[in-house]
Amino acid sequence: MESRRGRVADVRSRTEVRRKPERARYEREVIDAILDEAPFCHVGFVDDGDPFVIPMIHARVDDTLYLHGSPGGRLGRLLGSGASICVTATILDGLVLARSAPLHSMNYRSAVVLGQPRMVDEQEKLRALEAVVDHVLPGRRADVRAPSERDLKSTQVVSLPIDEASAKIRSGPPKDWHEDVDLPVWAGVVPLSVTAGEPVPVDDLPEGVPVPAYLAGYRRHS
Amino acid sequence: MESRRGRVADVRSRTEVRRKPERARYEREVIDAILDEAPFCHVGFVDDGDPFVIPMIHARVDDTLYLHGSPGGRLGRLLGSGASICVTATILDGLVLARSAPLHSMNYRSAVVLGQPRMVDEQEKLRALEAVVDHVLPGRRADVRAPSERDLKSTQVVSLPIDEASAKIRSGPPKDWHEDVDLPVWAGVVPLSVTAGEPVPVDDLPEGVPVPAYLAGYRRHS
Repeated sequence: MESRRGRVADVRSRTEVRRKPERARYEREVIDAILDEAPFCHVGFVDDGDPFVIPMIHARVDDTLYLHGSPGGRLGRLLGSGASICVTATILDGLVLARSAPLHSMNYRSAVVLGQPRMVDEQEKLRALEAVVDHVLPGRRADVRAPSERDLKSTQVVSLPIDEASAKIRSGPPKDWHEDVDLPVWAGVVPLSVTAGEPVPVDDLPEGVPVPAYLAGYRRHS
Repeated sequence: MESRRGRVADVRSRTEVRRKPERARYEREVIDAILDEAPFCHVGFVDDGDPFVIPMIHARVDDTLYLHGSPGGRLGRLLGSGASICVTATILDGLVLARSAPLHSMNYRSAVVLGQPRMVDEQEKLRALEAVVDHVLPGRRADVRAPSERDLKSTQVVSLPIDEASAKIRSGPPKDWHEDVDLPVWAGVVPLSVTAGEPVPVDDLPEGVPVPAYLAGYRRHS
């Protein structure tokens, strides 16, 4: 693990946190944990000089980040061009309520990975798709039909090395001005988490197929 | 409302949805509802040719999107340069579980606003900060200390016109291949929502300050 941390730290110039550097973290364990917990990510890229940001489903396998989805359109044009994309995964942990308006904030953990995307071959695509399913819902992979050749042909997966990466974390209580702390205003943190409601089966589910155990108690951002 | 819709539609070229256009929506009511419900957004910008995506807190007031936070660092350099930024707000509505691995997906609502950011003056900053507090937690604004001159000086707010915008929405069940529907695999949607846990007060909260009623039942992404 030491070498992985070192590598990230060595080349972090583009992903170095400039604003509020006290919130920055560069350890790969911290970055990986955020990438693994965030259900989806936002992918930024440059098209004709303008920035674009779109949500995508990702999954991490070791030092590689996979993005699931057909890279047609703007993102697809970048593949092989040498241009970088920016993958940002953010977990919202809580609302931070201060006594004064401007000090309201949110507690969050955010990971940023910058790098050149590439298309993966069919062998790697299989591995990536399994990782994506496990990322969407841990435990799910064992239940689903394995990808067929047609599946692999009709699905696109883009990969990105986790070489240049950083994390940014805000946690803890609000930071009020000293003269505000005696105000009769409730201040503190409201923890947030993503929780699952009652699963809604498809209309054509064969009779007798049970609700899988891994659906119960889905919870993220806790 | 007709004119607002028209304006957005007229200039949507940069924000037109290219991938899966059947999921695209261009009505301002749809875009506004997503911006208003999403607790935070991801802001994309170009720095030295590379894309960067960072989480920020936003609030919408009529046709203007405000971003809360000091625009030092990379984003700050763009102000007044004529460069555009991309604000993307995404609400995760559910996990979509298909019978086969590659058709796993998520239900979501995403809004994209592209435009040139500008710094706001102190009068507008006041309005923006109130909107941000109400966005973080509806009902909160009436309780907090109003921004002082010092607050206004030490807080930065960037604004963006909601002129070029689009939304993308996936909803409903998985779309399995016909030959997979008889497989004994549970398929359907797991609805997700963001819910609040027990509020954690600051250590120095004056005695007798009650937990505000608006903290109870916070729920988004439902």
